[in-house]
Amino acid sequence: MIRVGILGAKGYTAGELMRLLAFHPEARVECLMARVEAPEPVEQYFPFLRHQVRLKIEPIDLKALAERCDVVFLALPHTAAQAYMKALLDSGLRVVDLSADFRFDSVALFENTYGVTHQAPELNAKIPYALPELFRSELNGPRALANPGCYTTASILALAPLMRHGDDLELDHIVISAMSGVTGAGRKPTDNTHYPECNESISAYGVGKHRHRPEIEEKLSKVAGWPVALTFTPHLVPMNRGILATCTIPMRRPITTAEAHGWYVEAYGDEPFIRLLAPGVTPTTAGTYMTNYVDIGMVADAHSETLIVISSIDNLTKGASGQAIQNMNIMFGLPETLGLIGASRA
Amino acid sequence: MIRVGILGAKGYTAGELMRLLAFHPEARVECLMARVEAPEPVEQYFPFLRHQVRLKIEPIDLKALAERCDVVFLALPHTAAQAYMKALLDSGLRVVDLSADFRFDSVALFENTYGVTHQAPELNAKIPYALPELFRSELNGPRALANPGCYTTASILALAPLMRHGDDLELDHIVISAMSGVTGAGRKPTDNTHYPECNESISAYGVGKHRHRPEIEEKLSKVAGWPVALTFTPHLVPMNRGILATCTIPMRRPITTAEAHGWYVEAYGDEPFIRLLAPGVTPTTAGTYMTNYVDIGMVADAHSETLIVISSIDNLTKGASGQAIQNMNIMFGLPETLGLIGASRA
Amino acid sequence: MIRVGILGAKGYTAGELMRLLAFHPEARVECLMARVEAPEPVEQYFPFLRHQVRLKIEPIDLKALAERCDVVFLALPHTAAQAYMKALLDSGLRVVDLSADFRFDSVALFENTYGVTHQAPELNAKIPYALPELFRSELNGPRALANPGCYTTASILALAPLMRHGDDLELDHIVISAMSGVTGAGRKPTDNTHYPECNESISAYGVGKHRHRPEIEEKLSKVAGWPVALTFTPHLVPMNRGILATCTIPMRRPITTAEAHGWYVEAYGDEPFIRLLAPGVTPTTAGTYMTNYVDIGMVADAHSETLIVISSIDNLTKGASGQAIQNMNIMFGLPETLGLIGASRA
Amino acid sequence: MIRVGILGAKGYTAGELMRLLAFHPEARVECLMARVEAPEPVEQYFPFLRHQVRLKIEPIDLKALAERCDVVFLALPHTAAQAYMKALLDSGLRVVDLSADFRFDSVALFENTYGVTHQAPELNAKIPYALPELFRSELNGPRALANPGCYTTASILALAPLMRHGDDLELDHIVISAMSGVTGAGRKPTDNTHYPECNESISAYGVGKHRHRPEIEEKLSKVAGWPVALTFTPHLVPMNRGILATCTIPMRRPITTAEAHGWYVEAYGDEPFIRLLAPGVTPTTAGTYMTNYVDIGMVADAHSETLIVISSIDNLTKGASGQAIQNMNIMFGLPETLGLIGASRA
Repeated sequence: MIRVGILGAKGYTAGELMRLLAFHPEARVECLMARVEAPEPVEQYFPFLRHQVRLKIEPIDLKALAERCDVVFLALPHTAAQAYMKALLDSGLRVVDLSADFRFDSVALFENTYGVTHQAPELNAKIPYALPELFRSELNGPRALANPGCYTTASILALAPLMRHGDDLELDHIVISAMSGVTGAGRKPTDNTHYPECNESISAYGVGKHRHRPEIEEKLSKVAGWPVALTFTPHLVPMNRGILATCTIPMRRPITTAEAHGWYVEAYGDEPFIRLLAPGVTPTTAGTYMTNYVDIGMVADAHSETLIVISSIDNLTKGASGQAIQNMNIMFGLPETLGLIGASRA
Repeated sequence: MIRVGILGAKGYTAGELMRLLAFHPEARVECLMARVEAPEPVEQYFPFLRHQVRLKIEPIDLKALAERCDVVFLALPHTAAQAYMKALLDSGLRVVDLSADFRFDSVALFENTYGVTHQAPELNAKIPYALPELFRSELNGPRALANPGCYTTASILALAPLMRHGDDLELDHIVISAMSGVTGAGRKPTDNTHYPECNESISAYGVGKHRHRPEIEEKLSKVAGWPVALTFTPHLVPMNRGILATCTIPMRRPITTAEAHGWYVEAYGDEPFIRLLAPGVTPTTAGTYMTNYVDIGMVADAHSETLIVISSIDNLTKGASGQAIQNMNIMFGLPETLGLIGASRA
Repeated sequence: MIRVGILGAKGYTAGELMRLLAFHPEARVECLMARVEAPEPVEQYFPFLRHQVRLKIEPIDLKALAERCDVVFLALPHTAAQAYMKALLDSGLRVVDLSADFRFDSVALFENTYGVTHQAPELNAKIPYALPELFRSELNGPRALANPGCYTTASILALAPLMRHGDDLELDHIVISAMSGVTGAGRKPTDNTHYPECNESISAYGVGKHRHRPEIEEKLSKVAGWPVALTFTPHLVPMNRGILATCTIPMRRPITTAEAHGWYVEAYGDEPFIRLLAPGVTPTTAGTYMTNYVDIGMVADAHSETLIVISSIDNLTKGASGQAIQNMNIMFGLPETLGLIGASRA
Repeated sequence: MIRVGILGAKGYTAGELMRLLAFHPEARVECLMARVEAPEPVEQYFPFLRHQVRLKIEPIDLKALAERCDVVFLALPHTAAQAYMKALLDSGLRVVDLSADFRFDSVALFENTYGVTHQAPELNAKIPYALPELFRSELNGPRALANPGCYTTASILALAPLMRHGDDLELDHIVISAMSGVTGAGRKPTDNTHYPECNESISAYGVGKHRHRPEIEEKLSKVAGWPVALTFTPHLVPMNRGILATCTIPMRRPITTAEAHGWYVEAYGDEPFIRLLAPGVTPTTAGTYMTNYVDIGMVADAHSETLIVISSIDNLTKGASGQAIQNMNIMFGLPETLGLIGASRA
């Protein structure tokens, strides 16, 4: 039984980790820590976890964490996680970091994107970007993994199979229009996430400057072998969970939906968490709600000569905590779907 | 491994059964049947179950059902289930019936409430009302169980511990104001459940004549030992899941919150699915969202001399399919929480 | 043309005042003031008012306010308004106060309810409670009016016609279960109004201690002529606007819906803003959305021997700003519906 | 006083017409007709209009309509309106048609898009496309006007000022990602608009084949002077009202936000219903909720070398009924904003 700790146990991704791990047959949450003054019951932050999780959220104590756990999920805010990485690894813990701090190959790109100086650049190269569907072979050795962002997971998985089709598509004209539920904005109340302000409204935000764009580009560039630049416009939608990424790519030559669909079958055929929809069918976020699946559908639009690929994930599950557990499974040599897809499936 | 069949596999309670059973360690869905012309993939009705459930929904065939299953969940509409009960039992199947058809001790009350003639009155007395927290001892012998309604589960569990306190409370003046998410109205589109009609609105419905009132009264009467009559007003709330039942009972003598809380501790102390909140704390439906828990909180209001008890459940889980699995566990001698509360809980 | 000022121009009730006054034929907003450091454009707080209201929100300056306006709407938080009343009246302004500060006949009850010492008790008796449907005759003389609360408007208007029916009903056993949209909680972001916390959830709050209960009781007591005490349980509903008040009153003798309906026809027959629904029909909050109407419906439940009366209002309109304009109309001798019901109605 | 009739009085756009016309100083609704068997009260379909509109919805009778009205709003479903146009015009009525039936210059394009044979092609050329901000000069002579679609209004107004900038932008690579509230799907309940199916979910629909795309293209082609083809992907969002159109256009040369903003100032400077946001600010649908405004904002993204222009409208107001009243005002020589922007604005 893997002993799990969560650092940053008050946020939504921590709650999702606890929800999922309750049904994981080989892992057990043993330690919850966060910036609290004194131990607090978990139900103060997550009423739905009452009785299910009887641990308290304790003040951060890395020594205690190392004694009681085998792996720690770093669920701290971006730029706050990096300060802990070295100490955690030195104490023998394995780490799945849900923050952005070690996601970038380029430390400079991270620093430029998040506006801070990286505090552990020497570790950065040793912590791979843990998007299993694309980079699985790099993930089962390292003691720390950088869990991808939510928009990035949806966008990269929607686009990666196209990166080898530069002769078929104008890959320098990719447009991503993405929409997210409000948990993606985190737990801290703000004017924009005050219920009456975001209910009955949709809006774009971070237009031309959202922090997930460089992450998407760096990873797609790695897949493509050349520097990808694209347009990424995220929108806030009045719902709790879910991301839809609508990706539009101009064709260089006529392509049918069936042909494009074939590219995805080839790329993702056996991936346990990717569900390709039938040619011409596009996904809803309800379809991946509270699951670790990525639903992908596509339409080749002969009229406008563009390929439209749409992906759906749950931002808290495949976009954060579910994928983190998937990565923990890989790290410990367990079946990748353990605790994420029901074993007794029909 | 218990082999499970679902009859009426297209509705919301069927989808919830499949979602929950995917993680049940001792049961496996083997057969899905409904009123379809030809086999249809389950994801046509439940996109989120794609790949998780690879069975098709087949036309109803009781013989095949009996061969392939040990137990069947009857998830048919009220008044449609009763026609199948005898055949199912005769074929050796066990049955958990999610409809109202066998919930009433009084066949006449059922007939009056649902406006139909009962088709299997001779079976009615053999099928107990399966609310385990109150009637557990009656449930592990019979081959068929009548799963309670959603409003009734929330209301009865909120009120049952008070039924012995007729000296303390005016039990002939109970008022229940209950609020439900829209899945409670079922899957069939109607004017009232058309999104723009129910979004941004709340309304009462079935005022003075909702069919769950007689069910609540009959069961509370059984607990009390005398005929209970009460006021029950349900409301439709713009959310998908969840029921809140706000129960108000006048005091006969001054009662404190702590005293009333003690009654519930005494009544429900070890119940695995009942979570009593601290005295003075009242529940939210978010707290029981997608769980099988019942959260109960209370406030004794000295000013108005009433006791206010509020319960929260998820209408599809404890209010339907979760409770049905709890009943299946009882029926098969399994731990009652199996598949419903994570085994690796912290 | 009445020159209008708004003090406390950043809150939701201020925005609603501006929305409504834009179509008022005899009033014009001339001055917006609030606790700001420097003038700010109104669209910073109310994007929908851009171009419609070109005034800036200025720092509070009572002298300038008095010079530029005939009447001021006090849209400040409870307990903050009272400090301004004397100065405003002394400067010759008329005042409609949307806060609770002058709503109570009993200063002691106000102080006890709001936990502060009243700063202008000598003015309190001169400022009538401005619920026109009940107290119209008291409203056209004074230079200041106390605008009722939202829950109180819905509850009092639902119950007032019953107060003379103590022989027919058990008026000491009134139970109000009320539900409100989230704008009722004001503009300041909090944990409870953070979108993911209140979306997909319903909860009671302030159980047994909500501040609108004493207001409801004091006014109904005035109508009744004896001290009314009742149970009031408010709930927060995931929608922006709207209040539904479900009131349950036990019968002393058998009463039909038609009979009770007749009491309301008699009480409210010609009231322009009260819409009695047909006997047995109950209202939705969608029906009063963004209107100044109060919809009232009722069902006499012979089984439980209770009368259920349900009222619906928009908490920002009839529950606050619409009623404030109705009161301004009365104060200035204008037709009461001016600017609130379209003149060219069919 | 203009006497107004509404044909197709049961749908959402009819309700919005009545809501708006109640405050119109020069028009009065005199006649409501629809496919009903017998006269029905308007509140049966629009509870919020009770008392505000006392007319009944009558069976269709064109002779009576012509006698009692000066202008009729055709609020019938697409393809159903065309059958009435000739008779209405022959009877001397003026007509604002909210359907798609006369929106296309090309009858063939209409027939291809809507899958029917046009029943009044000879009238088509006489009925201009009534988007006042672009085609105002064509609108004040004809006796019938074709009111634009909702997505089309948002999209065309966002893009029209760019059509002369083919040297600056790659106008053959326009991508529109649009999102609409559910009233846009009309009043008829369907599986997709059943509350639990569309709440907590976002999805694209009609990908590559939505009927508003040809309408957008034909009108932008007219503005541009060459055949425009573009990508248009609409999404259904869990809210009642509002459309956001996010338009992405690649640059041919570096363009700043300020430069692009200048193009819009030049194009729309004095338009009463277009509100250009400050450079870099993008709109929310809440900002245009229940108003006739179009909010437009833009960001020039130097990194991806694209211009992102976002527009927001209320689909029922500027996207349908508000614009129809704007067109009626033009048709009758009234100030264009009458009844749509408050006269007593500050």
